[in-house]
Amino acid sequence: MSKLVPPHGNGRLNPLLAPEAERAGALERARQLRKVPMSSREVSDLLMLGMGAYTPLTGFMDEADWRGSCLDMKTAEGQFWPIPITLSCESDLARGIGIGEEVALVDGDGAIFGTLAVTEKYAIDRELECTNVFRTADTAHPGVEKVMRQGAVNLAGPVTTLSEGHYPETYPGLYYRPADTRARFQDLGWTTVAAFQTRNPMHRSHEYLAKIAVEICDGLLVHQVLGALKPGDIPAEVRVAAIDALVTNYFVPGTVIQAGYPIEMRYAGPREALLHAVFRQNFGCSHLVVGRDHAGLGDYYGPLDAHHIFDQIDKGSMEIQPLKIDITFHCYKCDGMATGRTCPHGEGDRLAISGTGLRRMFADAEPIPKEFSRPEVLDVLRAYYDGAGST
Amino acid sequence: MSKLVPPHGNGRLNPLLAPEAERAGALERARQLRKVPMSSREVSDLLMLGMGAYTPLTGFMDEADWRGSCLDMKTAEGQFWPIPITLSCESDLARGIGIGEEVALVDGDGAIFGTLAVTEKYAIDRELECTNVFRTADTAHPGVEKVMRQGAVNLAGPVTTLSEGHYPETYPGLYYRPADTRARFQDLGWTTVAAFQTRNPMHRSHEYLAKIAVEICDGLLVHQVLGALKPGDIPAEVRVAAIDALVTNYFVPGTVIQAGYPIEMRYAGPREALLHAVFRQNFGCSHLVVGRDHAGLGDYYGPLDAHHIFDQIDKGSMEIQPLKIDITFHCYKCDGMATGRTCPHGEGDRLAISGTGLRRMFADAEPIPKEFSRPEVLDVLRAYYDGAGST
Repeated sequence: MSKLVPPHGNGRLNPLLAPEAERAGALERARQLRKVPMSSREVSDLLMLGMGAYTPLTGFMDEADWRGSCLDMKTAEGQFWPIPITLSCESDLARGIGIGEEVALVDGDGAIFGTLAVTEKYAIDRELECTNVFRTADTAHPGVEKVMRQGAVNLAGPVTTLSEGHYPETYPGLYYRPADTRARFQDLGWTTVAAFQTRNPMHRSHEYLAKIAVEICDGLLVHQVLGALKPGDIPAEVRVAAIDALVTNYFVPGTVIQAGYPIEMRYAGPREALLHAVFRQNFGCSHLVVGRDHAGLGDYYGPLDAHHIFDQIDKGSMEIQPLKIDITFHCYKCDGMATGRTCPHGEGDRLAISGTGLRRMFADAEPIPKEFSRPEVLDVLRAYYDGAGST
Repeated sequence: MSKLVPPHGNGRLNPLLAPEAERAGALERARQLRKVPMSSREVSDLLMLGMGAYTPLTGFMDEADWRGSCLDMKTAEGQFWPIPITLSCESDLARGIGIGEEVALVDGDGAIFGTLAVTEKYAIDRELECTNVFRTADTAHPGVEKVMRQGAVNLAGPVTTLSEGHYPETYPGLYYRPADTRARFQDLGWTTVAAFQTRNPMHRSHEYLAKIAVEICDGLLVHQVLGALKPGDIPAEVRVAAIDALVTNYFVPGTVIQAGYPIEMRYAGPREALLHAVFRQNFGCSHLVVGRDHAGLGDYYGPLDAHHIFDQIDKGSMEIQPLKIDITFHCYKCDGMATGRTCPHGEGDRLAISGTGLRRMFADAEPIPKEFSRPEVLDVLRAYYDGAGST
């Protein structure tokens, strides 16, 4: 009975990871190939291609797909795709690569992650990409800055992913491929699933938003960005334990699961919200929670731009639907949790604690209001900040 | 830009109320016609037909439509319609009525509400109707009892509604026809609207459910059943004032409006939930809040039967979607409002006050917990119970 949303595009998952039995041999052969180094963003895209999250893409985009994706959010074939997925290369290296040549794709440490059968080499208009995708060419924007300083030539062609890096070992019970999440949803009898994107522990505002999603859908996927941490970030295992503490004590059993996936955020705001939606459909989700300033950064995007863009794209661009939720908080006049759409009161009535503020409160052993976070969650975080839980 | 859900069926509202300018003359002519008395349920159905709420129906159903509606929830033409809309008549009176004859439809006091051009007379299998529509033939069920004791012959044919009774005068600013609610939604810039059916004031559990709806939709229509009161019912003007007090103090301006409509509940549980959805689509609503035991009575229906039936009907039967919400309450362990889907705690942790319990608390001047109802709402109700507000 249970029928999940189909994968994006042709309706079949298209993971590009070589079958496990063939991987060692393929890696061995790849060592003989010319090596093309990838940026951390390109590595993460190769991993996403490998696991099938970027279905139906078959590799790094050629010029026609790159241009279509930038300008119209569509590949040359008309497939909706809101952000170009490309591989850059320094000119000197590119010059020696022949069309039809197979190259090895390596990370910053020289580790091979896959191979690319080169079908095209092209130069891009970086400004065109940035002004369309990021709505700015300001290199103070980290996503823009990466495009601006990437190699001068893009290499296109089908890829085979040969390694998932450290993810399966580092995140057992958390690293799930789209086929895995789909199987888990089926096992749980879910048809409609909302994805909630996070890279932080969940406090009561996140709980509230998640519970709205649980009202609408059979289940909630707390879907975490795995990967390099910024200073001040909570390590994944602490975050998972904190979210587990919340789910165990405050959600109905069988309505929430956690998973993680290896993307590097571009902070492209509305365009990235669309990309998040597309690949969540591949993971089997019918809905994506799109919060205030989703995937945004600084003042580059209006706080609800990532909501509005879903109304601006062609109907039928994808099957997953946004679940647009404004900012959530505890309001003392409402005497409960609320959002910007449901609370008519002022900022002064609302409880707001920033990430920095919270860390300071932990450092000063200041009591944290129960309206902000559940005691079970705070216990996990306190143990971590006290150094006891940072195993 | 704003595009509401189209009316049910052919996409055009079909109100059967005679234009105001013609009504007096038509009523005058109707006085010369043979009179067919209607039950209170039949009067309410004629009013619903008149205002366009039963679009695309053109009158009372003939035998083929009656049977199709009972057995397959479809008219003979294949139009989804989950409950037969019929007019009964005593045998003696029916015998004298000729096919093609126009009759006057009168209420229990003999007041003319419309005319019917008789196209068919037929006897029904009451048991078939009741077991299909009500899932029971038990005459202790008031909806069943009305079918069982109605006249032996059904009269079918197109109707013209000639009076809206006392509703427009009794409920100014509340009695809105489907064309009126649609115009108001357009004025407010709403595209998606959730209807919330109520015949009671709204306490915090209703507020919570309404706020979930406001998260999903542009606006909420608090849609009240107008009509005869049962002992213990709150009069409409008090209910409206109590809901206004809630909306003014606890909702964002421009997200909620109130309206009322003249139906007599059948208490047919799941089938009636479908009917509620169909005519809410005519009122311009994209969603209907379907709560626990929606339109149910006693133990005749499982508490979530009215949720499940929306999954059992053919896709495309209607465009409006159910917004299924389980029972809502304050939970002390959750430290907030919750539903059966989001609260994992026990009944003992939840605040529950019955309607009877609440009336007793008012009578005894017992304090009512703020977790149960807003003080502004309680003030309105207290004034009414104290006799001061029963104007």
